[in-house]
This record gives sequence, structure tokens and C-alpha cells, in this order.
Amino acid sequence: MAATRVGVIGLGSMGLGMAVSALKAGLAVTGFDLSAERRKALAGAGGQVAESLSLLVEEADIVVSVVVNAAQTEAVLFGDQGVAETMPDGAVFISCATMAPKRAAEMAARLEAGGRHYLDAPMSGGTTGANAGALTFMASGSPDAFERAEPALQAMGEKIYRLGDAAGRGSSMKLINQLLVGVHIAAAGEAMAMAAKLGLDLEEVYEVISNSAGASWAFCDRVPSILSGDYSPKSAVSIFTKDLGIVLDTARAEGFPAPLAGNALQAYLMAEAAGMAGDNDSSVVRVYAKLAGLDLPQS
Amino acid sequence: MAATRVGVIGLGSMGLGMAVSALKAGLAVTGFDLSAERRKALAGAGGQVAESLSLLVEEADIVVSVVVNAAQTEAVLFGDQGVAETMPDGAVFISCATMAPKRAAEMAARLEAGGRHYLDAPMSGGTTGANAGALTFMASGSPDAFERAEPALQAMGEKIYRLGDAAGRGSSMKLINQLLVGVHIAAAGEAMAMAAKLGLDLEEVYEVISNSAGASWAFCDRVPSILSGDYSPKSAVSIFTKDLGIVLDTARAEGFPAPLAGNALQAYLMAEAAGMAGDNDSSVVRVYAKLAGLDLPQS
Repeated sequence: MAATRVGVIGLGSMGLGMAVSALKAGLAVTGFDLSAERRKALAGAGGQVAESLSLLVEEADIVVSVVVNAAQTEAVLFGDQGVAETMPDGAVFISCATMAPKRAAEMAARLEAGGRHYLDAPMSGGTTGANAGALTFMASGSPDAFERAEPALQAMGEKIYRLGDAAGRGSSMKLINQLLVGVHIAAAGEAMAMAAKLGLDLEEVYEVISNSAGASWAFCDRVPSILSGDYSPKSAVSIFTKDLGIVLDTARAEGFPAPLAGNALQAYLMAEAAGMAGDNDSSVVRVYAKLAGLDLPQS
Repeated sequence: MAATRVGVIGLGSMGLGMAVSALKAGLAVTGFDLSAERRKALAGAGGQVAESLSLLVEEADIVVSVVVNAAQTEAVLFGDQGVAETMPDGAVFISCATMAPKRAAEMAARLEAGGRHYLDAPMSGGTTGANAGALTFMASGSPDAFERAEPALQAMGEKIYRLGDAAGRGSSMKLINQLLVGVHIAAAGEAMAMAAKLGLDLEEVYEVISNSAGASWAFCDRVPSILSGDYSPKSAVSIFTKDLGIVLDTARAEGFPAPLAGNALQAYLMAEAAGMAGDNDSSVVRVYAKLAGLDLPQS
């Protein structure tokens, strides 16, 4: 039996890691990225590369879209070189971008009308998870979409949550997750800066809080970068201005108030305004430090 | 060698559990509470009770103060029947209330001037931890204070963080913890209500988020009460209007902005305004549900 053919669109830090994880799992992987350099990175890791979207998907069983947002996903599917009509009949499109649930539902309906399948499958786990094939997928879609997507999900994911057959539910769950992570990282910044203001030893604060009721996954994961003063981007501030923006746009469209998420978004926007858009999202603490004249650890 | 004599002031749900844990550890425990009913509860569990503060502390090696705030602690120490001068010379006073660090430092200095010791030892772990002798203490004080307090800390605590010899550091750490827990519980409420608004299955949201980057100790601990619709108070809304109030008073006194904590405080105040002050702090979700007309699970 021939290996399942997977086309990966978008070879950034997430997409490249996912493509390589699929290769390691024995799938036949071809990748595409607008950047020749990113294509070369996949080739160096043993993957095939395609020179265009059409060439990428023409023989694919599974297309994995690892682009930034709904607009890019829409362009990939329905733009000038969109794959919606060049994908083989019956193939599945796995969309990994964080987006408003309604956008996911609309694109799924439009793609499915043409005989292809759509899996709404945003993910979490960062580049570490992508490289290890250990992502979490929050996925929804038809049973056919799930069945066809299975080899890629297994290769790239460790936990695959099946959230029903309506595209949009995966995106909804991802937004709830991003609301919480976004608030928690901002709260970690506020708390660590206040700890510094009160004269506490920051290493001690990390040790105590990590083992107390104040702990969160985000606190435990991000505070080490504050302690080492290393704000090189594992996940950039701009990801959360984007994702909390989607959370709040969605909430507003639903007539739902989300003041804590709104407040956290302002913290990331302050970090962007201070020139830290491309730095690690733990940089929120540096906004407080700047305002209050605090000395944080330097790398 | 005679058992260490411990006097416990305040036999509420926390103090009673701590007194009983000390009894189980073999200490000689006497308790005091203004309420005869609470005194009777300790007597029923095998402890001695005192009819006044003076009688409680006159032979105590260790006095554990489990009252609500700085004002009550001050009254216990320096009020009309205050124990500052009736405690034996050289005994230690363990203060467990959450309070502004400066208040702790002031009371410590005043008590120590009279030859007694003060340990600034706020705790976390709730009634479950109190009953099991498994609290976390965030403690600071002189080496003498720590040495004398040791038998009680060991009997009542599982984790004892020693945060240096300056009273106030324990209180500072507790405030950082409460800032985070307070924001996290409010964020859990906002997120669960938004999940309901988006039509997600709330049990599924709990399962996914508990295992994803959006997890926090508070989310995992409090959301089950939302799923079961049981808002009977394990930790009441009013605890967080109090504790975030102290966090924000302290921040303001330091000239430090804490907008996320401020926003979370408003969420608890909204819950109080809606008549939920004595309900479980997870009731924040019910404020959103009330505003947005959502149906949450009922017990």
C-alpha cells in the first residue's frame, strides 16, 4: 500500500516541525511556502517541495494548512491559485489557523460543496509540540473528514480532541483556550512585576507559586524566560494581539462581554507599542517594569 | 518532655481544621473563638477550650492566629484583651491572615519589642488542607520565631516556604498568589460563560482545557462546581473581594498599576452586587450568565 500523501502549506516554525513529524511517521510529505528558504529547510530534512500550491495538492490525500489566520486560509483555499478545485476529489483539508468559528464553518461549507472535506483543527503545543509530533488538536468536522485526516493527525498530534461534526467547534474551543492562556500570561507578567516591586526574590516567587494555588500552565512555562531575561520569541507578543483580537471580535459579534480578555489584550498592545511585538509574550512584564522603573533579570 | 502547648485563636473552618491537625500530631491544643458553638466543636474533637484570650495564651508556647484580616490580628495582639503582653515571654505568635506586608512588619516590630516572637505566615490550601494538616505556609520571620513555631508548622502544613527573616515577605508572597488565583478564577468564569455562549459542551471544555495550555490550578479546581451547578461556598466570593482589595490597596500604596487584578476585583464585586457574596467564588460565571441570558448547569 502506498504511503498516504500529505501536502503541508506554510513551512514556518510550526509547519516545518509538523511536516518533519509526518515524514518521521512514514507519510509521503510535500511542502509549500512562499519563501524559497523555508522550502529548502524542508528539503534538507528529507521532504519534497512543490513550486506552487497546485503542484502541491494535485496528488495529496491530505492537505494541512498551517498559515496565520482566516484571511490566509481563505486565500489558500479560494484565492487565485486556491486549492479548493485542484485538490483531488474526496481529499481532506485540515485547517490549523486560529480563527472565528463562523469563518471556519463558512469555509467548510464552501469546500464541501465541491466534494472535498474540511477539518476545523486548530492546535496547541508550540514549536516543541510540532517538532515532537506531540501537538494537541481541537478538531471538529464530518466523520469522513476525520477518517481521511487520521494519518496526519496521528503523526503530528499527541492528543486529538474530537469535538463533533460541525466545523467551527474546534475553532470555538481554541478561542476559549487562547482567552485563558492570554489572560494567564498577562497575569503572570503583572504578578512578577508586582513581586519585584515588593522586593521579593523572583526565583523564590517562581518556586512558591508553581507549587501553590496561583499556578497556571502559562505561569510555569513563561516565567523562566523572565528569570533568565531571555525574551527571544518562542511565542511572540504579536500572536496574542492577534488571538485575543479574534476572541474579542467573536465575543463582540455574539454580544458577549469579555472584560478580562479585553484587559489582557491591552497589555499585549502596550508591549507592542513599546516595540516588543516580535519578542516573547512574557514581555508583558517588561511593560510594567518600564512604567514602574523596576530592574528585572538581564540575560 | 511535656507536649508543646499551642493556642489557636479563631475556630472557623480553617482554624478548627488546623487545631484538630495539631491535636492529631500530639500537641496540647487549646482554642478560642468568640462563638460558643465553635468552641464546642473543638471540645468535641478532643481539644481544650479557653473562655478568654488571656486564659488561652498564658501558658502557650505557640499562639496561632487564624482570623480574617489585619484589623482583627491587631485587635488580638494589641486590643483591650490583646495577647501581646499576656503571652509568655519568648513565645511565638504565628499570624495566618492575609494582609498588607507593611502591616505585618509593623505588628512584628511592636510585638518583638516586648520580647515575644512574630512569624508572618499566611497560608494556602483551603479547608481541605487545614483538615489534613497539609497547608502551604508562606512564612518569614526571625530564626527564633521559626524555631519556636516549627512544631505547629509541621503539624498543620505540608509545604513550609521560609522566605527570610523580615516579617512582611510572607504576606507579600501571599498577595502575589492571591493576585494570580483571583484573576484565574475570574478568567475561568469568563471563559466558561463564553464557551456556553458559543454553544460548546461545558464538560468537554473542562476536559480539553484541563489538558491544554489554558489550564490553571484554579480552573481545574473551580470549574467542577460550575459543571455541577453547586455554588455552596468552599471559598466564598467575599474572600476575593477582600484579598484582591488588599492586593490593590498595596499596589496603589506602592504606586504600582495592577489593571488585571483591578478588573478581576470588579468581577467579584459584580457577583456581590448580584447577591452572591456568600456563594462559592466560581459564581463569577453566573454574573456573565445573568448578563448574557445563558443557561448554566443546575444542581
